[in-house]
Amino acid sequence: MKFEIISKESTGAARRGRLTTRHGAIETPVFMPVGTQGTVKSLTPDELEDLGAQIILGNTYHLYLRPGAERIARFGGLHSFMHWNGSILTDSGGFQVFSLAKIRKIQEEGVIFQSHIDGSRHMISPEVSMQIQMQLGSDIAMCFDECTSYPVTREYAKQSMDMTVRWARRCKQAHALPGQALFGIVQGSIYPDIRRACLEQLRDIDFDGYALGSLAVGEPKEEMLAVLEAITGELTESAPRYLMGVGTPEDLVEGVRHGVDMFDCVLPTRNARNGMLFTSQGSIQIKNSRFADDDQPIEIDCTCYTCRRFSRAYLRHLFMSRELLVYRLNTLHNLHYYLRLMENIREALQEDCFDQWRRDFYNGLQK
Amino acid sequence: MKFEIISKESTGAARRGRLTTRHGAIETPVFMPVGTQGTVKSLTPDELEDLGAQIILGNTYHLYLRPGAERIARFGGLHSFMHWNGSILTDSGGFQVFSLAKIRKIQEEGVIFQSHIDGSRHMISPEVSMQIQMQLGSDIAMCFDECTSYPVTREYAKQSMDMTVRWARRCKQAHALPGQALFGIVQGSIYPDIRRACLEQLRDIDFDGYALGSLAVGEPKEEMLAVLEAITGELTESAPRYLMGVGTPEDLVEGVRHGVDMFDCVLPTRNARNGMLFTSQGSIQIKNSRFADDDQPIEIDCTCYTCRRFSRAYLRHLFMSRELLVYRLNTLHNLHYYLRLMENIREALQEDCFDQWRRDFYNGLQK
Repeated sequence: MKFEIISKESTGAARRGRLTTRHGAIETPVFMPVGTQGTVKSLTPDELEDLGAQIILGNTYHLYLRPGAERIARFGGLHSFMHWNGSILTDSGGFQVFSLAKIRKIQEEGVIFQSHIDGSRHMISPEVSMQIQMQLGSDIAMCFDECTSYPVTREYAKQSMDMTVRWARRCKQAHALPGQALFGIVQGSIYPDIRRACLEQLRDIDFDGYALGSLAVGEPKEEMLAVLEAITGELTESAPRYLMGVGTPEDLVEGVRHGVDMFDCVLPTRNARNGMLFTSQGSIQIKNSRFADDDQPIEIDCTCYTCRRFSRAYLRHLFMSRELLVYRLNTLHNLHYYLRLMENIREALQEDCFDQWRRDFYNGLQK
Repeated sequence: MKFEIISKESTGAARRGRLTTRHGAIETPVFMPVGTQGTVKSLTPDELEDLGAQIILGNTYHLYLRPGAERIARFGGLHSFMHWNGSILTDSGGFQVFSLAKIRKIQEEGVIFQSHIDGSRHMISPEVSMQIQMQLGSDIAMCFDECTSYPVTREYAKQSMDMTVRWARRCKQAHALPGQALFGIVQGSIYPDIRRACLEQLRDIDFDGYALGSLAVGEPKEEMLAVLEAITGELTESAPRYLMGVGTPEDLVEGVRHGVDMFDCVLPTRNARNGMLFTSQGSIQIKNSRFADDDQPIEIDCTCYTCRRFSRAYLRHLFMSRELLVYRLNTLHNLHYYLRLMENIREALQEDCFDQWRRDFYNGLQK
């Protein structure tokens, strides 16, 4: 994997870069749609490509449980199993083990848990997580970490971070797939000094990129921004920076402002399925009765397939009728919105006018 | 609407024709995918066009209740509301009133029923059905009829048929949309003489086409074939013949053999969503564990999008994970199968080798 910085904002921390994996170049800052179970819900890989998605995220925990990483390996990896030729980043399974499974035991060796699907018992350790991600054959693998919830005490945050660092060392040791990058995850909750201590140790181990974990897990927005403020400047300049699981369009803009290069979040896809649609003037709920006779597209001037073809009234009808088509059409629109947002951000960075672009973006939301 | 017969089988009743509506030419025999609520479930209109769908069916009962026929009329009709430029046939609402709604009263005037959505009370009469179908602006409207279940007594079948004929007369009277064809529906359950009496009276009223109703409603296959045998030969030669709600691939082949020109059925789309996939060697259940590691497409040599891209193992994984994408991919395959089947039948008819084609078709299923 190669990462180059193409340009930097003259008056801030934001940067425009290019990440190159075995599956091609990824222009950054980039948003990665989430494809939990080997599919970005409701869309085909061709539609993702048409939308301009460059890299998607696959969930190690889900794919390990079903259909199984060995099975996917027999198909030549996740790319060929799901027929996606862009890049893939896999998470470590850590977050889902803590949020979805029934935890039986967290110990130095790893985490013993019960599957949310059938209750079967499993253990994911740093070595197992590496093994699975190598079987999936993603372009970027993530270290197995403990994702802390909010709030946690300083003591817990410190203790957990120490384990995450020991696990990161074991991940680096176990990782052995040529061409697959490995990212470390900076933990430490909302405590800047613990985050910094984590980062220093991870940097000693030496990873291809660094991620910020356990943000957008319930803490007030100011706390998240304070961590970004305190940490992103300290992240290795020459390595990609990834803010995990974030977030709203505003979060992406603020992340970029603080020098983040990569984002992922279920928000555009999950909200699409719940009828919440993003526009440059804020979001709308398509089920609202004021759209029942509205012959306009979701957003005038939007060039997505949904807006080129269908009215709000038709989408509302499909949504009220729980018709399968609406989940696709809404997802297409929301991902188009997110991916165009990042494209616009990249253009603004290229022309060194991100600060002005950012003000216009917030002004648009006020309308 | 224009209907021409292009060729007839030299040794049988099957025929190859062309039906021309305001939305273009429809090569017959034709299968019409069902788009109940203004959408063929999970697919876009562009995908339907790519599949080669020439005409789809819309359900009057559903669209009347939600989003409402007046609303669709304000959008310029169902074609522009759902963005489909091919032809549309609307049913009369009769079948759904009897199968879905809670019937309050069947009387000469019409049927009083409660909506299956919110329990609200409504009345559909022949005049109301015509009004709704004219508002929807379909290319072919159907007469409001009573769809009898199976079995019914001779007495009930006769009495119901008489009312259906009186309703058909009122439909013809109320129908007033230039360019919209109106088809009569032959009732009479499994009693050939009642069917014949119905047909004679409908022919006197004079419709643009004639349909066979209340078949495939639970009667043994031989009963359905016996009715086809007895009646299709008597149907006006120069008008299109439509076998409503039928059926399996074998049913379509037997329908064509008896001179039927048009079919519709939820089978390919509904079964797709239940994981049942059609192939020329019979159907398969994708959830079957024998497909877990199967890297072949649903059907080798199938040219549908799904088969060109994805393995049975991947489809099985999506199906077991209840992923939205699988409903689309399965629907694409099944509709492709049905539409190719009809295309192959038309080719065989054109070359006057339908009988041989039919034998090959059944031999294929035995494999």
